Parts: sequence; C-alpha cells; structure tokens
Amino acid sequence: MYFWSVIKLAIIGTGNVAFHLAQAFHQAEAVHLKAVAGRNAESLKIFKPFAYILPDLKDLPPVDVIIIAVSDAAIPEISAKIKDNKALIAHTSGSTSVEVLNTHKRFGVFYPLQTFSKSNELIYSDIPFCIEAKLKADFETLVGLASALKAKSYSINSDQRGALHLAAVFGNNFGNHILTQAQQICEERHVSFDLLKPLMEETIRKAFSIGPEAAQTGPAKRGDVITIEKQLNALQSPEQKKIYNSFTEALLKHYER
Amino acid sequence: MYFWSVIKLAIIGTGNVAFHLAQAFHQAEAVHLKAVAGRNAESLKIFKPFAYILPDLKDLPPVDVIIIAVSDAAIPEISAKIKDNKALIAHTSGSTSVEVLNTHKRFGVFYPLQTFSKSNELIYSDIPFCIEAKLKADFETLVGLASALKAKSYSINSDQRGALHLAAVFGNNFGNHILTQAQQICEERHVSFDLLKPLMEETIRKAFSIGPEAAQTGPAKRGDVITIEKQLNALQSPEQKKIYNSFTEALLKHYER
Repeated sequence: MYFWSVIKLAIIGTGNVAFHLAQAFHQAEAVHLKAVAGRNAESLKIFKPFAYILPDLKDLPPVDVIIIAVSDAAIPEISAKIKDNKALIAHTSGSTSVEVLNTHKRFGVFYPLQTFSKSNELIYSDIPFCIEAKLKADFETLVGLASALKAKSYSINSDQRGALHLAAVFGNNFGNHILTQAQQICEERHVSFDLLKPLMEETIRKAFSIGPEAAQTGPAKRGDVITIEKQLNALQSPEQKKIYNSFTEALLKHYER
Repeated sequence: MYFWSVIKLAIIGTGNVAFHLAQAFHQAEAVHLKAVAGRNAESLKIFKPFAYILPDLKDLPPVDVIIIAVSDAAIPEISAKIKDNKALIAHTSGSTSVEVLNTHKRFGVFYPLQTFSKSNELIYSDIPFCIEAKLKADFETLVGLASALKAKSYSINSDQRGALHLAAVFGNNFGNHILTQAQQICEERHVSFDLLKPLMEETIRKAFSIGPEAAQTGPAKRGDVITIEKQLNALQSPEQKKIYNSFTEALLKHYER
C-alpha cells in the first residue's frame, strides 16, 4: 500500500448508484465528498447527511474528480454542462463508452458491477470496480477511489465493460425475473418461497466453482420427457408456460437431447 | 432435543442424491447405513466406503427405513421389487406423489430441496428436507433422519412439493442456463466471468430479503429503450438474442411499460 492525498470528490446524480457511492465515500477516510448535485431538489434531500447538496451544476466547487452517476441517456447532456476543465470526469455506466466524455481534458469510467437499490446494504470489498481512463495518472486516481471503499479494481475497456453489463443483465435482471416466477408458483400452492434460498445460493456457488455448463441439472438436461410433460401441465400461467417451454427447448438443444 | 435409537437404513440408487445421502448418513451418529443397492455394479463401487453394496434388491438386510433415490420414472418398478413389509419406504423425488408407494404398509417422502452433483460439498444444515408420510410415527422417523444430518425438516404435501420442485426448476435449471449465456458473453470479449459472482450473490440475497419483484432493476424494468436497442445489437448468438427478446418483452409487460 502507498499513501495518497485525500481525493476531493463531487457526485452528480440522485439515483441508487449516486446514493450508495455518496454514502460510502462520505465514510471513506481517503476521500472528501464535497458535493452532490442534481436537478431534483426533492431527491437531493436524502444526500444531506453526506455532503453539500447543489441543485445547480454551476455551483460545483473545485474538486479532483467528478463522478457522473445518472441514467445512460442523460450522460451527454450532463457532461456538456460541466465547465470544470481541471477535474477528472468519470461516469458509472456499464454500457456507455468512455468516449462520451471525450470533450473533457481528463475522463474515465468508474463502473461498480453490482445491483443497487436504496434499501440494500452493500459490502464494498466484494464489489468489482471496472476502471478505464486515458491517462495513467487518472486511472490510478480512480483505483484510489475504489481502494478508499476497500473495493477491488479491474482495468476493463469499454468493449469488455459492455459485455460485463450485458452478462449482468442476463444474470441479474433475467435471473431475478425467473425468481419472480418461482415465487408466484410457490404462492399459488401456499408454500414458502424462502425454502428455495439455500438452493439458489448453491446454484450460484456451483456455477462459479465448476462453471454453469458442468453445473446444469434437471429434467431438460437429462431429456426426462415424462417430468417435462408433468411440469408443463402443472403450470397455470401462460407466461410461466412460455418461459418453461423456451428454456426446455434451449436446454434440450444445448445438451443435444 | 430428545434421544432416538439408531435408525437402520438402506438406500436404493447410485445417482447424485444417493451418493450425497450415503456419504452423509455414513457419517451421522444416529443412523446406521447398512446397505446401498443398485443394478449397476460399476456405479456401486463409489459407495464402498459408506456401506455394503448390493447389486440385487433381494439381498437387502432388514432395516427401519429404505430410501429410494432413483430417477422418477424408475420409482414404481423399484418399489414393486421391495418385498420388505416392515420397513418404512420413502422416495426422494420432488415431482412424484407419495401415493406411488402406497402398495407398501408404511411409506413417505424424504425430498432434499437442493442441487446435487457428485463434486459439490453440501452444508446439510442449510438444506430444507420436505417430508411427507401417512403415519405420524413414520413422519417423525423421517424428521429424525433429517435431524441426524443436522438439516431442517418441513411438512410438505405432494402438491406443495410439486410446486417447490417446479420453482426449483425455474430458479436453478433455468437460472443456471442464463448463467451459461452470461459466461459465453464474457468469454467472447475475453473478460472474466468470475467478476459477476458478487453481483449474482447479491441478486439472491436481495430477492429473498425484499422479494424478487421489489428487487427487479435493469433497462427493461426502467423501459430504457435506448439501452435495450444497444444491447440487442451487441449480442451475437441467435440463442442469446432470443432470450434477451423474450425476457425484455416479459419484463416490459410485467412492469407495464
């Protein structure tokens, strides 16, 4: 480890990522979170415990790094409004190229590969931060920010980051929607969805230890047509039948049955 | 806790469930695993460290409980071959009614809600055992078997068990196939699939703490058409495009966008 001076930081945005980063950087010793800026005065309120809140970007104080944590679509507009030409400007988007910020002298990406809701407490030491910057010194500054949260950093270019974000959409967004179906199935028969938790934890553990293809089990993998028929008949909702059919078809094909 | 006498046990089957149960019961103090029976002499070999291995069901020694841990389709045939009319006969299937065993005097179900591969080490205290039996004493015996593994038991009827198994197929089988796609996406862009592990762990934690509907995030949930278009264009495999489309459609509909 080496010493770095305290990094002066501003965050633009009032969503879940902005909230978690503001909360965490407020507590980090190596970072001084000077301000959080956002257009919506109401959403800004919850940031009061962490930093000065600014409804106008023009009032941003001089800082070392400005993190833009807004929706992908809003990044270009926000970026264009930043007149500070000394700070390193970084966005937190998984699927947006670093080049969207190339009107600035110093720019980069600080993408935490995690799912954020205001209510969940996060363990930062577990979160991989995907970092990209044109200048080596700026890359090191962003690594320093991640270190200040005790998080791990990875050098990931825009192309790779796009792939990770897409993989995250599959695993988290689609995987979670499957759990919504699983919960519905449990509720229809008055059986606790919580009973599935150890199975789902083991599913993740196994997929990342032996790989998801080696971890695959179930009727479709085995080509067990009797169970498949029985389960299709037991399903009540058309949406569930559709998901069951398409995955069963995909699995039968993938494992050549 | 109360004392019970040692339960004398035999297991029929040589698959993953049979293997894990044999290994665990061999180590359990309150259980004496007397024999493992199976037709295939070669697959029986790995059971040698745990109990006598029997290629013929006729040689089963007298026991208190016989666990049938074979494929769903083979249960009726195996059940018909068991001539012991004193033992409690239980199967381990999620989607098979307890009634398949009703030619016996005493019968039940001992279904561990978990995914089994020969290579994974299981923490039994985390596994919910779904138990069903006609007679209260038999129910208690099966609870005793689960307790001997330090596992939790739940009284679950055949209908509820079918729902749990179906929910497990969604969560584990389909969820794991989604991870196969996520891994492929990562590999195509030469970025480590392992980076997704903390996200997937958090996905499970969040879905079971606030519920999967409240936990849903992502472009489709937000109705973020720009990101959806961009991601669809970035996908290379037709199978991935198909999964992306069907989940995006389902999510847009489910969250009324």
